[in-house]
Amino acid sequence: MPVALPPALQRLCEALRKLPGVGPRNAERMALALVRSPSGWPESLADSLVAARRVVRPCVSCGFFTEGDSLCAVCRDTARDPAQICVVENATDVIPIERASVYHGLYHCLGGKISPLDGVGPENLNLPRLVERVSAAPGCEVILALGTDVEGETTALYLADLLRGKSRSITRPAQGLPFGGTLEVADALTLGRALTHRTALHPEISVENGGK
Amino acid sequence: MPVALPPALQRLCEALRKLPGVGPRNAERMALALVRSPSGWPESLADSLVAARRVVRPCVSCGFFTEGDSLCAVCRDTARDPAQICVVENATDVIPIERASVYHGLYHCLGGKISPLDGVGPENLNLPRLVERVSAAPGCEVILALGTDVEGETTALYLADLLRGKSRSITRPAQGLPFGGTLEVADALTLGRALTHRTALHPEISVENGGK
Repeated sequence: MPVALPPALQRLCEALRKLPGVGPRNAERMALALVRSPSGWPESLADSLVAARRVVRPCVSCGFFTEGDSLCAVCRDTARDPAQICVVENATDVIPIERASVYHGLYHCLGGKISPLDGVGPENLNLPRLVERVSAAPGCEVILALGTDVEGETTALYLADLLRGKSRSITRPAQGLPFGGTLEVADALTLGRALTHRTALHPEISVENGGK
Repeated sequence: MPVALPPALQRLCEALRKLPGVGPRNAERMALALVRSPSGWPESLADSLVAARRVVRPCVSCGFFTEGDSLCAVCRDTARDPAQICVVENATDVIPIERASVYHGLYHCLGGKISPLDGVGPENLNLPRLVERVSAAPGCEVILALGTDVEGETTALYLADLLRGKSRSITRPAQGLPFGGTLEVADALTLGRALTHRTALHPEISVENGGK
């Protein structure tokens, strides 16, 4: 290693490399920008990091991010439909769904998915609170927005069984071709599912696939 | 903006976006990783950031990074050749040169380059100390490893004039085709310079281009 960076700078590079998507060159570039900046934003960054770590907590109702003991912004929002509960694996999964701007119900973050290989069973997930919430709203729809991998499918089947009879309906997002994708780039499994679950172009017959 | 992240998390995202190469999605991903980590590395990151900002300073001799008032690791290294001074624009330019592992002399960081459009003149650069160092080592070689843009060329010409007669020789890195590049991908200016400064394959005649 010919580069003789001061130890404090080396330690900063190593710490930055723990951030997702940051390699050694990237960390070095960030570290140099941080120590060279004449303004105070690096100190602000350190402050906001420590502050966020201290105050950001899971919402006691749904598990999404909030500050301290208060309900999260979604649970507090009286304009959201309490008759829809969208179940996701992690709190981070709420963000892409919110970005799609088509869902206006509530969420429930499980904190993981059933994965026997990783030692994660139903007892490790936030299920008691989900059952409690669904039981308290018997007319609700539960949307299982879990991953389409094996563990996500396993968790969805387990939940469908657990919640049977407790909610009005249990649904999941459609599986098929991604928007803007051509048939050439779709993998065989995706294309197979898209063909199996094909929808009619006339709305009156598309209900056979559970469309809403 | 449909995503309702807690304010502390939003502030962290905004602070992370100031890092070089970090866009909004990337900052969000980092912020979520930081607040979700069960271990203490985010606090270590904040600590090492604040520590690096406090102790990392420019070396009083050459301007490269060091801690506190001590000379930098390059200036302290008695194995380095004091008869070679490589002049670079910024302290960060030392790192790629060190990585090339072919240079074993000392450095001098100017702290910028002459750029009238940006209001940077010779008086804004660390030139007095350079003249002092070169004058103290009259047999030395000064290597002007500046950018090959207009400002870099201007600065090189200014320095060649300023240091005339003070050092044994003033050189600059060769300009030509990058290693591993094909002629097809070289731009016209680079290819033109590479042809103009072509070198002989027999070492005994290559000295006409200042090769060493």
